[in-house]
Amino acid sequence: MTDLLLREDAGGVATLTLNSPANLNALSDAMLAALMEALVALDGDDTVRAVVLRGAGKAFCAGHDLKEMQAGRQAEDGGRAYFGDLFTRCAAVMQAIGQLPQPVIAQVHGIATAAGCQLVASCDMAVAAEGTRFGVNGVNIGLFCSTPMAALSRNIPRKQAFEMLTTGGFIDATRAEALGLVNRVVPPEALAAEAQALADTVAGKLGAAVRIGKRAFYDQLEMGLSDAYAHTGAVMVDNMLWRDTAEGIQAFIEKRPPDWRA
Amino acid sequence: MTDLLLREDAGGVATLTLNSPANLNALSDAMLAALMEALVALDGDDTVRAVVLRGAGKAFCAGHDLKEMQAGRQAEDGGRAYFGDLFTRCAAVMQAIGQLPQPVIAQVHGIATAAGCQLVASCDMAVAAEGTRFGVNGVNIGLFCSTPMAALSRNIPRKQAFEMLTTGGFIDATRAEALGLVNRVVPPEALAAEAQALADTVAGKLGAAVRIGKRAFYDQLEMGLSDAYAHTGAVMVDNMLWRDTAEGIQAFIEKRPPDWRA
Amino acid sequence: MTDLLLREDAGGVATLTLNSPANLNALSDAMLAALMEALVALDGDDTVRAVVLRGAGKAFCAGHDLKEMQAGRQAEDGGRAYFGDLFTRCAAVMQAIGQLPQPVIAQVHGIATAAGCQLVASCDMAVAAEGTRFGVNGVNIGLFCSTPMAALSRNIPRKQAFEMLTTGGFIDATRAEALGLVNRVVPPEALAAEAQALADTVAGKLGAAVRIGKRAFYDQLEMGLSDAYAHTGAVMVDNMLWRDTAEGIQAFIEKRPPDWRA
Repeated sequence: MTDLLLREDAGGVATLTLNSPANLNALSDAMLAALMEALVALDGDDTVRAVVLRGAGKAFCAGHDLKEMQAGRQAEDGGRAYFGDLFTRCAAVMQAIGQLPQPVIAQVHGIATAAGCQLVASCDMAVAAEGTRFGVNGVNIGLFCSTPMAALSRNIPRKQAFEMLTTGGFIDATRAEALGLVNRVVPPEALAAEAQALADTVAGKLGAAVRIGKRAFYDQLEMGLSDAYAHTGAVMVDNMLWRDTAEGIQAFIEKRPPDWRA
Repeated sequence: MTDLLLREDAGGVATLTLNSPANLNALSDAMLAALMEALVALDGDDTVRAVVLRGAGKAFCAGHDLKEMQAGRQAEDGGRAYFGDLFTRCAAVMQAIGQLPQPVIAQVHGIATAAGCQLVASCDMAVAAEGTRFGVNGVNIGLFCSTPMAALSRNIPRKQAFEMLTTGGFIDATRAEALGLVNRVVPPEALAAEAQALADTVAGKLGAAVRIGKRAFYDQLEMGLSDAYAHTGAVMVDNMLWRDTAEGIQAFIEKRPPDWRA
Repeated sequence: MTDLLLREDAGGVATLTLNSPANLNALSDAMLAALMEALVALDGDDTVRAVVLRGAGKAFCAGHDLKEMQAGRQAEDGGRAYFGDLFTRCAAVMQAIGQLPQPVIAQVHGIATAAGCQLVASCDMAVAAEGTRFGVNGVNIGLFCSTPMAALSRNIPRKQAFEMLTTGGFIDATRAEALGLVNRVVPPEALAAEAQALADTVAGKLGAAVRIGKRAFYDQLEMGLSDAYAHTGAVMVDNMLWRDTAEGIQAFIEKRPPDWRA
């Protein structure tokens, strides 16, 4: 049996590969469980300082496993309990990405649709290959992409999110970049290297600083400005008191590389 | 007497036309009342699945009826009660657009200024003709566009909204698209067809799915991410249990058109 | 001794110049105190209707004074109390800009990094010279730009903010404009004139209207839509009852210049 989700570590970067190309890396029950397990493992892994998330085969991810969902209707309650549990587990995976200490970079190619587009929106950063198509197109089959929009509408302006959701149309990578959904678009042959370079850059920073910064980033986004300042100010005081930060600042003043221990 | 607001229905799309070209479709008391009446009628009309809002004559809408507002000053309180009521009624119309079950597409040409620009910002989507000018320029006459900014600042980035509000300057359609205020810009002669095509696309979806999706869209935008997921997850479970959604997904799996009843 | 902060007034526009070119206008304790003092003075100054904030020398502002911060470590508590106080004072300056009645325009050249980039993000509008570089690059020295991100993440989309914060990379002025961080980019030789023109435009409006509008702008941004309408509606009623606003509207109707007293 092939692993649904592959993990390779090198140079402080863990690369997770959705490995179910036959169904375009659908977020089946098994795939969601594998993703959550991988995220939990990464959470406590100090050797990893950045994560790349990619898909094997022709596409990044085409969303939920529709056949599995239809099978869920056989239950006595028509699937209500199963669907509730499914969307709860899926939302937990999406939110676990933002809660992971390490930055997560989506490396996107082919298509990223429905919950697959949500996965891109839920990553901290995203690099896409030219030609990639993004959509939250559940509306086309009568299932509005309600949970994907929670992530999407926090990435791009509202009229553009509304259009994608209600027309079920695709946007290409260039448009996705212009709207804010991805950070960079590169030719397909340069995609892996670009995602790796971005991960390497982040992995080269002081890990503890990136960690507290990422957490504070999402925390303060949900606060009013005054609270955001109170919160981030406290975070920054702690940061200042670390040995490695004192060294990093001193090294900068003395125009030499820092001698970091962490 | 000519109707201030025209409604034409065809193919599940209702087209509302602001029909007061002599004063650039000003949002007079009568026009606001007509709009609210039309929105209330649409709210309960299951035959309508998308709405287009346009203006007759040279412009989409130039905002409030200034002569009528000045006349309001004759009251014993200098107009305080009237103005309070006016802005309350106007805000109710603007919010009723977002609360309407059907998506509303602004079809914009000529100018959209002050409350007219607010009207564009309040619609779910907007298509504009090349050459259209947008402004929240009340500041030029000493009346800051305070209520329009509630809608505008939720469409475009804050520094750009601030500039429009405090300089009273116009932006053109291309800039409006880049900032997120409109979805598409087309030549004037293609405007009506483009708005119609967008409405037709939306009207071709499962109406109930669009309805619950639109409502959840605005609801979740005002929540923190965790609450947004709890809310949209519940919406999606309900959506999954509909007969037409089961059929839509099954049809997709079987690569055939869905047999929708609604 | 040279003043750290210069102020020149002309035509209703106050120009503040960060005047410490030797350390790239670092936000030292003294500079923060000078800025706060200047902002407090402007707050009560009815002769000033717009403010331009610029930097002397090669750069707009390079952020905190790192040498001074390192010296703070000599305290018995390793600097904890000092750093807490420093970030509190810095956040107070940043927020005082938004709370100032007059619009504040950042005139940016050279570099705007860390708290210097935060200063740009905290201004109401910004004009930048071509070639200006923006960064929140504290992560490069182990000090995550946690407080700057409170301002930055309210100006630009989140994935792009996250990238700047965790990679420590620069963006140029053109990219800053595309993301929403600055309003306009002009050649260096046109920078001062462009900032002045923008300030003059704002200063030419009815000051009281700009004042209540600016305050309401930031207040309503932190509210849900319904509350935002209730709040801005009340602001607009007050605005309507001013003598100068009545005159401004009447003059517009009569196609003549307004006779404003304020």
